[in-house]
Amino acid sequence: MVGDTIAAVATPPGEGGIGIVRVSGPGARDVIKAVFRPRYGRGVDDWATHSLHLGTIIHPDDHRVIDEALVAWMVAPRTFTTEDIVEFHCHGGSVPVRETLGAVLRAGARLADPGEFTRRAFLGGRLDLAQAEAIIEVIRAKTRDGLGAAVSQLEGQLSRRIGKVRDDLLALLAHLEAMIDFPEEDLPDLGNDRIRSDLVKIQRQICDLLERSRTGRVLREGWRTVIVGRPNVGKSSLMNALLDEQRAIVTEIPGTTRDAIEEYIDLGGIPLRIVDTAGIRETEDVVERIGVEKTREYLEKADLALVVLDGSDSLMAEDETLLLSLAGRPAVVLVNKSDIAVRRLDEKRLHSLVGEMPIISVSAKEGWGLKELAELIRRMVYGEDGVGFSPDGGRLALVTQARHREALERADDLVRQALKAVDDGASPDFLTIDLKAAWEALGEITGDTVGEDILDKIFSSFCIGK
Amino acid sequence: MVGDTIAAVATPPGEGGIGIVRVSGPGARDVIKAVFRPRYGRGVDDWATHSLHLGTIIHPDDHRVIDEALVAWMVAPRTFTTEDIVEFHCHGGSVPVRETLGAVLRAGARLADPGEFTRRAFLGGRLDLAQAEAIIEVIRAKTRDGLGAAVSQLEGQLSRRIGKVRDDLLALLAHLEAMIDFPEEDLPDLGNDRIRSDLVKIQRQICDLLERSRTGRVLREGWRTVIVGRPNVGKSSLMNALLDEQRAIVTEIPGTTRDAIEEYIDLGGIPLRIVDTAGIRETEDVVERIGVEKTREYLEKADLALVVLDGSDSLMAEDETLLLSLAGRPAVVLVNKSDIAVRRLDEKRLHSLVGEMPIISVSAKEGWGLKELAELIRRMVYGEDGVGFSPDGGRLALVTQARHREALERADDLVRQALKAVDDGASPDFLTIDLKAAWEALGEITGDTVGEDILDKIFSSFCIGK
Repeated sequence: MVGDTIAAVATPPGEGGIGIVRVSGPGARDVIKAVFRPRYGRGVDDWATHSLHLGTIIHPDDHRVIDEALVAWMVAPRTFTTEDIVEFHCHGGSVPVRETLGAVLRAGARLADPGEFTRRAFLGGRLDLAQAEAIIEVIRAKTRDGLGAAVSQLEGQLSRRIGKVRDDLLALLAHLEAMIDFPEEDLPDLGNDRIRSDLVKIQRQICDLLERSRTGRVLREGWRTVIVGRPNVGKSSLMNALLDEQRAIVTEIPGTTRDAIEEYIDLGGIPLRIVDTAGIRETEDVVERIGVEKTREYLEKADLALVVLDGSDSLMAEDETLLLSLAGRPAVVLVNKSDIAVRRLDEKRLHSLVGEMPIISVSAKEGWGLKELAELIRRMVYGEDGVGFSPDGGRLALVTQARHREALERADDLVRQALKAVDDGASPDFLTIDLKAAWEALGEITGDTVGEDILDKIFSSFCIGK
Repeated sequence: MVGDTIAAVATPPGEGGIGIVRVSGPGARDVIKAVFRPRYGRGVDDWATHSLHLGTIIHPDDHRVIDEALVAWMVAPRTFTTEDIVEFHCHGGSVPVRETLGAVLRAGARLADPGEFTRRAFLGGRLDLAQAEAIIEVIRAKTRDGLGAAVSQLEGQLSRRIGKVRDDLLALLAHLEAMIDFPEEDLPDLGNDRIRSDLVKIQRQICDLLERSRTGRVLREGWRTVIVGRPNVGKSSLMNALLDEQRAIVTEIPGTTRDAIEEYIDLGGIPLRIVDTAGIRETEDVVERIGVEKTREYLEKADLALVVLDGSDSLMAEDETLLLSLAGRPAVVLVNKSDIAVRRLDEKRLHSLVGEMPIISVSAKEGWGLKELAELIRRMVYGEDGVGFSPDGGRLALVTQARHREALERADDLVRQALKAVDDGASPDFLTIDLKAAWEALGEITGDTVGEDILDKIFSSFCIGK
């Protein structure tokens, strides 16, 4: 446990009904005594844990009233940080929040570093490292599905899966080491076949997690998407239709930020990160502008291409060139202007060009076909069998973060190496080195084996007050 | 009391440690049951009022987990709205907050209008109207002193003063009406002198409040300030020095917004609203640009002029023209570049030009003299005897809002009219009409006499979630 008492503003900056200054540490009780005058009763020494109290925040120096506030009091160890926590809920403007924080700092707390509350939760054993990291993922989630993946990690789904693999590794290691240390004892010899099958089981679990990391990455970072097509097929109308659908959700619920809107489109829960949004909006002729020979290069940047064709017009040479350049890439063909009765597009020719690419009939103008597009993209992200979902629809562990993926890949390599050693007839002590390293690599995910430098790196990316 | 249950995001939009969805009304308990799964214990029916509970927020339709959260539960009537209130404290990102609000709305609450929580606090009798209005003033306070004025209003200082005047008016009215209704009864006749002296006392109280409204307006809206001077005297350096001093405070305390910085300078607690900030920053030659003949017009927009001279240079014709054009206006002369040892400015000539205007020697470069400037401006706003402060440094009632000022002015006119009527020997029933109207005008401030349309206007200017 860390000894001092930290404080920070825990609510987003700006104007709202409530602004919170959060304090954690052994001095929290004294901070209350110094800056808070309760309306009823005698004060914090009489308060139960997890209770709320009305009163005024006063400055410890001149006792001037700063604001009326509700104070939340939570006694260690059953708190987020496992330390005493007090939250001052003042009015949500920049000056009352700033002045309240000033009073709290004056009363002996020090300003918290970014992520320091969560770091204390980790150090206090309330969360493991993967759960601690999930907190900032929850805050920064871009869509409902991204939130779902982050909350599942916060609830420990990933940690449990990692723990299971590590337990299996440890059991195997223990046996191998016993065989090495006491070769004369009558230990049941596992035999190469048994060791091999144990290793294969372990490796399968790791691969299973790695397979889901593609889905996890999409949910966390968004699918880099390009919208392509020749001029006037309706690329910008399509994008506006997708954005409008989302704006309708967002503006229905005021008080939510619109920061993310310009960059991400929330398509039925999947975040699409539209590449070169500005370009599409200001000019319709992406293909013309960048030149056909450059289209491929442009597409290289993307995970997904939405190819827009004009259903009320014939297929042109440019359309065909574009479709051919997409062969083998993840793409969806959108036949736009389905609201126009006349349909001149040669379906047969189109089907022969696109191969396996899915084709959806849409009308950007009327909003037709967008639900079908969302459904299709969900299937592309989750797979037909719903990667990341249990059969009853519950969420499974998804690997969303590069740090976790990288640790899993290292563990995967080491286990593969061990498997090869078994096949080559290597001795058990040769195996144990790799397996121990794999066990440690996986431990970096949950924070069982992790250095200060990694902790610093992780928590410095957090926001203040968390 | 209003019958339905309202909900809104109560924290500012954006990214932070905590985001709050607040629910008020008779259905709050059912909302908890529909969307919250407590980690410990059985649930809300077992909870004490003003208690906090850890658990998960789930969607009422598909029971998917939205976020981990602390729930604050407060039972009517000892709450802000005087109704049952529940607050869901989820993680402070736009998606978890939006999804939590979505779940709450799905569970039967409706989205609150701006200011609707506070309106319910007013309708429930927890706050009078002046106190309710103070809440948004607290949130939007620009400096420590602005916050002080707003909190004092929230605590009822203004309301008590208005109540006192209304009580005095009512006592006088009651007596006058008794004299009218029962002229034959042997009531002690107040006599014109007594009526007159009562009216003068009432009028003095109203004037006293009106006098402070100038200070109140400055604290609430800021002092419109122009920085003027010929090119290269250091206007933009001065402004940057003032801004830097403030930035130092603000950046020392992260999590506070910087929105207000560009527009307002917090000079020792007094908000200065710098007119034409952009102009000063991008070009040093305000006077040149707008022309000397236009300087007066430019100054008309301002409550205060900061005139910058170059102390290391002689007084120029432009300086003199500028100083003369300021005669009779509130202005401070800043003799800049006091860090340069050579002082060429003709002090005697300067003093003869500026008359009563205060002169301060400053160095924008070194930050010298800024404290003296702040102190001087505090005295200009509060007056030498500290308008708005009681002798022990506590805050008195300040009229900060135009609506209150306007009501006081109407009451003032009516009382003056009554005084004149007394002097003209008018009959008591003539007086009562004016005094009744004055009593009602003052009642608009505290909301004792106020229509729905005014309430709509006041609360619609609030933020959502307050």
